[in-house]
Amino acid sequence: MTVPLPRRLLAEFLGTGLLVAVVVGSGTAAQRLSPDDVGLQLLENSTATVLGLAVLILLFGPVSGAHFNPVVTLADWALGRRAGTGLRGQDVLPYLAAQTAGAVGGSLLANAMFDLPVLQTSDEDRTTSGHLLAEVVATAVLVLLVFALARTGRAAIAAPAVGAYVGAAYWFTSSTSFANPAVTVGRVFTDTFAGIAPASAAAFTAAQLVGGVVGAGVLLALHPTAGAAA
Amino acid sequence: MTVPLPRRLLAEFLGTGLLVAVVVGSGTAAQRLSPDDVGLQLLENSTATVLGLAVLILLFGPVSGAHFNPVVTLADWALGRRAGTGLRGQDVLPYLAAQTAGAVGGSLLANAMFDLPVLQTSDEDRTTSGHLLAEVVATAVLVLLVFALARTGRAAIAAPAVGAYVGAAYWFTSSTSFANPAVTVGRVFTDTFAGIAPASAAAFTAAQLVGGVVGAGVLLALHPTAGAAA
Amino acid sequence: MTVPLPRRLLAEFLGTGLLVAVVVGSGTAAQRLSPDDVGLQLLENSTATVLGLAVLILLFGPVSGAHFNPVVTLADWALGRRAGTGLRGQDVLPYLAAQTAGAVGGSLLANAMFDLPVLQTSDEDRTTSGHLLAEVVATAVLVLLVFALARTGRAAIAAPAVGAYVGAAYWFTSSTSFANPAVTVGRVFTDTFAGIAPASAAAFTAAQLVGGVVGAGVLLALHPTAGAAA
Amino acid sequence: MTVPLPRRLLAEFLGTGLLVAVVVGSGTAAQRLSPDDVGLQLLENSTATVLGLAVLILLFGPVSGAHFNPVVTLADWALGRRAGTGLRGQDVLPYLAAQTAGAVGGSLLANAMFDLPVLQTSDEDRTTSGHLLAEVVATAVLVLLVFALARTGRAAIAAPAVGAYVGAAYWFTSSTSFANPAVTVGRVFTDTFAGIAPASAAAFTAAQLVGGVVGAGVLLALHPTAGAAA
Repeated sequence: MTVPLPRRLLAEFLGTGLLVAVVVGSGTAAQRLSPDDVGLQLLENSTATVLGLAVLILLFGPVSGAHFNPVVTLADWALGRRAGTGLRGQDVLPYLAAQTAGAVGGSLLANAMFDLPVLQTSDEDRTTSGHLLAEVVATAVLVLLVFALARTGRAAIAAPAVGAYVGAAYWFTSSTSFANPAVTVGRVFTDTFAGIAPASAAAFTAAQLVGGVVGAGVLLALHPTAGAAA
Repeated sequence: MTVPLPRRLLAEFLGTGLLVAVVVGSGTAAQRLSPDDVGLQLLENSTATVLGLAVLILLFGPVSGAHFNPVVTLADWALGRRAGTGLRGQDVLPYLAAQTAGAVGGSLLANAMFDLPVLQTSDEDRTTSGHLLAEVVATAVLVLLVFALARTGRAAIAAPAVGAYVGAAYWFTSSTSFANPAVTVGRVFTDTFAGIAPASAAAFTAAQLVGGVVGAGVLLALHPTAGAAA
Repeated sequence: MTVPLPRRLLAEFLGTGLLVAVVVGSGTAAQRLSPDDVGLQLLENSTATVLGLAVLILLFGPVSGAHFNPVVTLADWALGRRAGTGLRGQDVLPYLAAQTAGAVGGSLLANAMFDLPVLQTSDEDRTTSGHLLAEVVATAVLVLLVFALARTGRAAIAAPAVGAYVGAAYWFTSSTSFANPAVTVGRVFTDTFAGIAPASAAAFTAAQLVGGVVGAGVLLALHPTAGAAA
Repeated sequence: MTVPLPRRLLAEFLGTGLLVAVVVGSGTAAQRLSPDDVGLQLLENSTATVLGLAVLILLFGPVSGAHFNPVVTLADWALGRRAGTGLRGQDVLPYLAAQTAGAVGGSLLANAMFDLPVLQTSDEDRTTSGHLLAEVVATAVLVLLVFALARTGRAAIAAPAVGAYVGAAYWFTSSTSFANPAVTVGRVFTDTFAGIAPASAAAFTAAQLVGGVVGAGVLLALHPTAGAAA
């Protein structure tokens, strides 16, 4: 990569922040406007996220790779180490910091746009064994998708593909597929439809890291050679 | 194809399994979250399937061809025999076994993610003459679509095209378009929105096989020469 | 075009027929499954049509051009006469006959799939001045879109573009955008959500022909030279 | 650009007019057909707009650039001045006039199609601090998206990307994302779901201009060099 690190960190900060603003903001709008049907709320929330996430990957991809997700950043570094194609080790922590800061900022921005107190936290307990299994599955398939596209020379279609995947994962996983530790932390800071309590956020993050390892393992079984860079 | 058979079977197993997990999981979520409107449930279920199926074809296509469907596998073998472009005869049964095992596993996974008993079967009778006609039509057009794209050199857009087709077919066929014997068997193993009783599954499978023959016939009328490989 | 006429007529027959089956079948499903909200019925109906129409254009486009619509066929012939790029005059009537026969067959097929009497007609009066204006606008923009894509060398994206256009037109025109005389005739033969009474069908067809002329006029103002063939 | 100015102005007039007709018309249909759930109305309205806007950009892009938006026109001129790639200064005011006239005409057309009094104005007060912040954010990201695609050589995918963005922005911004002064003025002229009172329109326009400046600033931070023309 030839883009200077500060510009890439700005892209990860803005992209993760806008992603959380899309998730939290559309969840808040859905909850207010469709109060009688939680499924309809989730359909509105997931539809906005499919479209928004695809656009954000298009927008920031050429600058930073559009990870917006610590698990993707860690996998990019780990999977590309030997071939020298992934993120450099010294850039990993700055990426994670930019993503997490952006995610928290995205919740605050959504709260402000909807005339809610800017600073707030969720007490929504989401921890069940089914939800944790769902986070493992959701994150494993996400990692498999991102890096399978890269290894087969199709990174250019990652934007619609990842957007579509998350839209399906909202519905087929019982947890509505957080699948992203930075976004999970950001969603602690809103007491709305998309919020999650801190203790559940910690459990979800652990499951997501397990999912990242599972996804990388399946990737190596299906595509043993590194092929093109991610 | 140069990908070793075990890797292709893993792709068919995972792809069919995740497809059934998407269908069953999103149906379960829809049923729970939108209890008052069956149409809204089907819209949520079909939207998730459109997105999920397209992604799974993108993900596993380069490895196994992303059949995920015994009718497609049989048609690929039958239509490509003369030109030597299709699946080899000796690979057909392993493909069918991997698809069916994956489909059953997908139901079990969805049941587990939604904190339901992992092992269960449906008693949803779906057999009417209209539904069986619908399965013939749904499968015929699916086979026609997949192999018309291949014969006109456009297999690269099969992922969004097949996803979109299934989304339309959920609605325009009265049966909600199973159109896939492996998925039909998998859906026996869930007593939720997407379930089907064993006797109906057998009748649906027969109709799907008839549909496959009809679709192949129309294909040969429209595109008599084999053209590029599927 | 080098495809023999009988094969092209088969494609127009099947394509228009399946298009009407999608419109009528998904309308019937929507009406049954979402009885309490007509808007939700229309959303289900329009979503299925967006997906289905795009797929049908992909499927039959390489064979017949995927007109499925007498106004498009007439415009293709009229706009391409001088440059010799359009449909030959002697093929126009066979195209119109295949489209109309297919459209009627599509209604009968949808009726059969939903276990309804196969032969039936609608008495749904849809004639208002607003609806007729809407049919003029809907058809004008459709013709403009199809031939502007052709004249700018982008006929390859007609499938998603026309599908998306019809999805918007279902909603922004008060008539739900029939915009197609063959489909209008076909929809006479179903007494369900998508049906239309014969007298309204005649008025709609007249408005659609006016719209076709308006669309061709705007096309010539924006793209005076014929450019590439449609 | 080699297309004569009058033809480009016709494209901006028609494109902005049809965009407003889509927004207002689909909003009117949604309000009538789904009276019991405002969220469902917005989902119907936003879905139609995603599809319609993408199509209109495809349709008129090769003629005028498909700005349909004074903020985009001003940014195109301002950002391209040095490199000589943007709109010429003398064309800016004609573009703005064509867009505004088209937008008003689009409202009148929608009113007529829905058999409503053609001339009417809204008294819907939409001014809150959250809504104004939302308009700044919505417009900033829109400008950033349009010109980031241009500066990275991907203007060809602007149609689906901008359509998708607006679909997300309907939901994640509390204001439902007007993000366009011409469309805002046009929406004054309808007393339906999509209407806005004149005083709110003025405040929204001011916020949109601020958003345009913010978006251009972020663009220059991420993509300092002009690269390819927009």
